[in-house]
Amino acid sequence: MRLFIYSPLSPAARTYLHQHLPAGHTVTYNADVPAEQQAAAFQQAEAVLGNVPPAWLAAGAPAGLRFWQIDSAGFERYRGVQLGVPVANMGDFFAWPCAETMVAGLLALYRHLPELAVFQAEKRWVGGAFVRNRAGLLRGKRVIILGAGAIALAIRQQLSGFGCPVQLLARTSPSAELHSVDELKAALPEADIVINTLPGSADGFFSADLVGALRPGSIYASVGRGNTTDEPALLGALQAGRLGGAVLDVTATEPLPAASPLWALPNVLLTQHTAGGQPLEDEGKVDTFLANLAHFQAGEPLENLVDLARGY
Amino acid sequence: MRLFIYSPLSPAARTYLHQHLPAGHTVTYNADVPAEQQAAAFQQAEAVLGNVPPAWLAAGAPAGLRFWQIDSAGFERYRGVQLGVPVANMGDFFAWPCAETMVAGLLALYRHLPELAVFQAEKRWVGGAFVRNRAGLLRGKRVIILGAGAIALAIRQQLSGFGCPVQLLARTSPSAELHSVDELKAALPEADIVINTLPGSADGFFSADLVGALRPGSIYASVGRGNTTDEPALLGALQAGRLGGAVLDVTATEPLPAASPLWALPNVLLTQHTAGGQPLEDEGKVDTFLANLAHFQAGEPLENLVDLARGY
Repeated sequence: MRLFIYSPLSPAARTYLHQHLPAGHTVTYNADVPAEQQAAAFQQAEAVLGNVPPAWLAAGAPAGLRFWQIDSAGFERYRGVQLGVPVANMGDFFAWPCAETMVAGLLALYRHLPELAVFQAEKRWVGGAFVRNRAGLLRGKRVIILGAGAIALAIRQQLSGFGCPVQLLARTSPSAELHSVDELKAALPEADIVINTLPGSADGFFSADLVGALRPGSIYASVGRGNTTDEPALLGALQAGRLGGAVLDVTATEPLPAASPLWALPNVLLTQHTAGGQPLEDEGKVDTFLANLAHFQAGEPLENLVDLARGY
Repeated sequence: MRLFIYSPLSPAARTYLHQHLPAGHTVTYNADVPAEQQAAAFQQAEAVLGNVPPAWLAAGAPAGLRFWQIDSAGFERYRGVQLGVPVANMGDFFAWPCAETMVAGLLALYRHLPELAVFQAEKRWVGGAFVRNRAGLLRGKRVIILGAGAIALAIRQQLSGFGCPVQLLARTSPSAELHSVDELKAALPEADIVINTLPGSADGFFSADLVGALRPGSIYASVGRGNTTDEPALLGALQAGRLGGAVLDVTATEPLPAASPLWALPNVLLTQHTAGGQPLEDEGKVDTFLANLAHFQAGEPLENLVDLARGY
């Protein structure tokens, strides 16, 4: 088959791909094709790895395309695209790293590590008095996680050593303790931490109404999609000092505009959409692609199939 | 009794002290006494809270002193002082916060939060490419903790959700898996993380020889005392790029001199002796003092008695 790799794979991951690719396939790397020929090269593809520009799909799929492997978890930018071929995403591949960044960010906020890192960059010793009397602890904090997917379950596991009561929110999941917006809103005033893990389909879910129900001094964290939080409402609550802080891997607009007040708010940590990062990330994308290539050739259903029409 | 409070208590903690102090005591706050009269005021004390200058003890204890409550865990600066009255420290009061700072620091290093905090201070969006392909995970890392006291046990508990095999080092503790320097040295090449929780009495314990036995790419973290690590050897290993990084709450000299190369080494996080910080820290010191005051007046042994002559 003719494979088209849109993902900007590291040199090591390219080597890894060729080491593990069965015979009988040709590989075209988008990055090796002159810019003006890339869209045409894509039209020759029978299997694709990576998140091609939506414009390339405006007229439908390439004629010979048999399946498309998206290299992210989210795919809301392709909402409504109809291709008539199987499309898969990365499933839970990013879940554990995303969870680690959330727990890391929360601990960092309580222990004032972002402040200390900036002091260190300035070679300023501040030590005891300045930081210690504002230090908090993760221990025993009451946590609500929005969502009950792999990220939520990983966060719950990682928090297990900290004595934190954790509630998950999901309409029907057996892992969830909260099942509706009403139940969530009733629980928010008793929560110290809210962690958003929602997919892009939950557009605007954490509304201004819910932001207003957050417990004063509580921390809001998000590794979901930026569009799932009413960001102006969150920003307002942070600016008013109503919240204790925020850990945001995602924002409504990325890169975050230089003019955003979020950059400079105290107790706000921006992790710049790095939460999915992990060792051998590119090799993992190759693994997922090759597994689905094998499934396809064996006539088996692909793993992690998604429905672009539904947008999530 | 005449109580002398050397600890620089917050206003709230002063109020707390007076709310909980039984009748029949007078309180002198060192901070309220003119500097030139402080040493003399101390000489009137019958019970003391706080870490007075060692020079004040050069001629022995005040004549009327009945007990002394140190307000830290460490007390190596009083090594060899002989007072003839009971002396207590803060016991395990700082253990859980210290453990949270260690776990927070390790997670922060793997998830590159210190770097991201500095980028945020500069309002620089770096996002994916720059950070993600260097991101690591705490999950499954093999950890050795030097010491088997309350800090070590708290770290082990906090790591329980991350699937990290943990070994503790202590000569005789039933909690420990490693019992000698030889056993430790044999285990170091298989460890991804070493966390030092040793008291000041373990002077120079983590020697150049042990630094040399650390696994290449491993992370060294310390919330023990600065004198328990051969810092020049550690610095050399970090500068040579042999280690993956370090999280140091303590250094041999504090404040860390501006000329120290530690300030600017990549993957080194300095938490500036803040790890014991926690909400109501000063109130906790008052609680400990008042508990020992009650024990003393009831003729009971004090809690957390220490032996200054032994230096730990």
